[in-house]
Amino acid sequence: MRVALTSAGLACGVPKPDASPPRGTRDLLPEQVSRREELEAKLVAAYERFGFRRIETPALEDLARLSGSEAGENEKLMYKVLKRGLGAVVEADTPTDDLVDLGLRFDLTVPLTRFYGNNQGQLPTPFRSMQIGPVWRAERPQKGRYRQFTQCDIDTLGEPSVMAEGELLEATLTALAAAGVSPVTARVNDRRLLMAMAAACGVPDGRRAGFLVTLDKRDKIGWEGVRAELLGRGFGEEVAAETERLVTLLASAETPDDLLARASDTVPGVDDGVLGDLRTTAEALGRLMDDPRGPGGFVYKLDPTVVRGLGYYTGQIFEFAHEGAAGSVAGGGRYDGLVGKSLGRDVPACGISIGFERIVDLVGPGRPDLGLAVLYDSTADVAGTLAAGRRLRADGRRVTLLPRRSNQRAQLDELAREGFSSYLVLAEGEAGEERRLSVGRLEGS
Amino acid sequence: MRVALTSAGLACGVPKPDASPPRGTRDLLPEQVSRREELEAKLVAAYERFGFRRIETPALEDLARLSGSEAGENEKLMYKVLKRGLGAVVEADTPTDDLVDLGLRFDLTVPLTRFYGNNQGQLPTPFRSMQIGPVWRAERPQKGRYRQFTQCDIDTLGEPSVMAEGELLEATLTALAAAGVSPVTARVNDRRLLMAMAAACGVPDGRRAGFLVTLDKRDKIGWEGVRAELLGRGFGEEVAAETERLVTLLASAETPDDLLARASDTVPGVDDGVLGDLRTTAEALGRLMDDPRGPGGFVYKLDPTVVRGLGYYTGQIFEFAHEGAAGSVAGGGRYDGLVGKSLGRDVPACGISIGFERIVDLVGPGRPDLGLAVLYDSTADVAGTLAAGRRLRADGRRVTLLPRRSNQRAQLDELAREGFSSYLVLAEGEAGEERRLSVGRLEGS
Repeated sequence: MRVALTSAGLACGVPKPDASPPRGTRDLLPEQVSRREELEAKLVAAYERFGFRRIETPALEDLARLSGSEAGENEKLMYKVLKRGLGAVVEADTPTDDLVDLGLRFDLTVPLTRFYGNNQGQLPTPFRSMQIGPVWRAERPQKGRYRQFTQCDIDTLGEPSVMAEGELLEATLTALAAAGVSPVTARVNDRRLLMAMAAACGVPDGRRAGFLVTLDKRDKIGWEGVRAELLGRGFGEEVAAETERLVTLLASAETPDDLLARASDTVPGVDDGVLGDLRTTAEALGRLMDDPRGPGGFVYKLDPTVVRGLGYYTGQIFEFAHEGAAGSVAGGGRYDGLVGKSLGRDVPACGISIGFERIVDLVGPGRPDLGLAVLYDSTADVAGTLAAGRRLRADGRRVTLLPRRSNQRAQLDELAREGFSSYLVLAEGEAGEERRLSVGRLEGS
Repeated sequence: MRVALTSAGLACGVPKPDASPPRGTRDLLPEQVSRREELEAKLVAAYERFGFRRIETPALEDLARLSGSEAGENEKLMYKVLKRGLGAVVEADTPTDDLVDLGLRFDLTVPLTRFYGNNQGQLPTPFRSMQIGPVWRAERPQKGRYRQFTQCDIDTLGEPSVMAEGELLEATLTALAAAGVSPVTARVNDRRLLMAMAAACGVPDGRRAGFLVTLDKRDKIGWEGVRAELLGRGFGEEVAAETERLVTLLASAETPDDLLARASDTVPGVDDGVLGDLRTTAEALGRLMDDPRGPGGFVYKLDPTVVRGLGYYTGQIFEFAHEGAAGSVAGGGRYDGLVGKSLGRDVPACGISIGFERIVDLVGPGRPDLGLAVLYDSTADVAGTLAAGRRLRADGRRVTLLPRRSNQRAQLDELAREGFSSYLVLAEGEAGEERRLSVGRLEGS
């Protein structure tokens, strides 16, 4: 019976073909899309109030640009697109790299810096960019990880001072609160402090990036793991011991002022300006926390153990955590060197990316209101039925025309579960009385 | 001076690198994105009132699925994605097709039919789908044509009667009117009438698709061109002559009733049901045109010369024209056979796609209101400046903090041109008087 009701097609005995999307990707059902749109609208509204303006770049970028972007692991996960106009058969010894010229973007930051280089003459300074869009990474599929996923980035280009950092942090916290993601912990560090810490631990210039990759794993693998990995990377026992001592000392500071004083005392290579900027950012976050007009629902911490993986960061770096999400819900930092690759001169830049998929998971499913269902008989006249729908739709409401089934109780139950709030039956083009629908308690059925 | 004002970076004498997006693609500036979002919101609101619900599918689909979809030319324009895990060098005689396993979607219909096959158990019948998203085709770049562009599709799956056609036509006309695209001419035909016409002209079964491809060019190449091409395809003089006679006879009908009577008399192979369905659709469109609650601003025509290129259409087909746009602004039709490939049994389906890019071009640029610009001194305290912005933003307005320049008149002029409606100057954390900005006539500056 269900087959006859749900399709006018023929059941032809052929086994159902595989209709799943490519491995690691997924379809989004109507209720998922409407939930995502609600969330997106909240983030966009919050960001617009700070003056961020949405831009879009193409999904495809030149491969050479994506490959030379210091984006670390992400480059290895890139989808590469076959060149046009290749023959049917590839010649012997053709390097695989010669077959491809485009790639799908793996983040929104590399495209943004190209965009700025391409359009700078038409953009204000500072330029506040907002981007929401899909990115692609061929990661090993696992629960909650998809090969196409949405990122939501804000970036300020052309603002050298930590006014950019302060505003980006406030805007992100405001957007997260608007989306219902609360409470949040914002952790702040500076790449330059990390580099100076590495130097103070005896890590030579040129090997500090690898050192930081290991340090970043401390939460997961503990000090024993860090020590083993450092030794494995060829660092000596002394480096490992000094790292544990210094990081433990700094990380145990109770207040921003305490941390900055300890850093000033024990990390000789760190610039006073770096510590001053961290103090300014901490002050802005402190004032935001105390302001009744602020978003509320967050705490912040200057945290010398925050590393962030990407190689292109040059200044302050940020991570936002929520207890309901593994990993961070947002992150970012300053990357003053990246725009120069596309513009020919350096432009200060700082940005924060919200992991849209994590937020969707945190906030959970919604329940759409589908409005009024209008049930018509299968024998009904087409033009008349459409005109009746038009009359009911005249005041702007959502009206869905549906063929009436013989088992009305079952149909009404299904409509209520789908999210319709009311229904009426159309007979001879005349609308019957409108009745409310509610799940599990159907009136008038 | 402009360089110093617009960037804190260094002019270092290096030539500007190429920062353009890949050939045939483009960046969208903030004012373009906001215009597109306005238009999209209008289309979505119109479609939602008819009960269409938005879904999303991944940009990538399995190549085998895209290649076997009867999508004609579009398949040849596909971007193909390199398989993961290939070696650095390709072995001799490797077929190019063995190197790729995924493709970027070239339309939204093929993904929709897969989506329906994958999720049918969770979808109502009929299912009204709305999709707005990018598709990719490696077409020869030309003005107004891009290799990534947005389509806006509505489709009804599971409704065998022309109730689907009537509603899709009304919804599309309503959405186009809401977007400001008016007046529009809607032309309606039926693939089955075309096939019967081909038979009546002496075109044998199995060669009718090619015949229709030629007939479709009549507007561009005239009857002389059609005749030459038909002869070139190996059809005889008789077929060419009969085609011109029959099509001219049918196309010169003045009313839907006249056309249907002529078709009934002169096209022996056409089913009465096909003509009856065309009459029903014409009746629905006629009634919509006369209804003061209808969208207005359109005319319609049953037009036996409408062909539509895609091979998968099986019933009525539609094209929407606007005098400001070359080609059609929307088009679609019934494709009852396509879902079966993903579901294993046929499901009736019908849809209409709006060419979003054409509509954007027709409607032209908008002018965003960026709200209030707050000018602060470069020496201002960060936390205090951010708090002042917060106070001004408290009632929900859009407030953009900007460093104050020494040439205030030039800055205000620029802000007005960008779209800010007012400004105020912040001094010592105190907001000065708010003043209005207008292009070419700056008050208070």
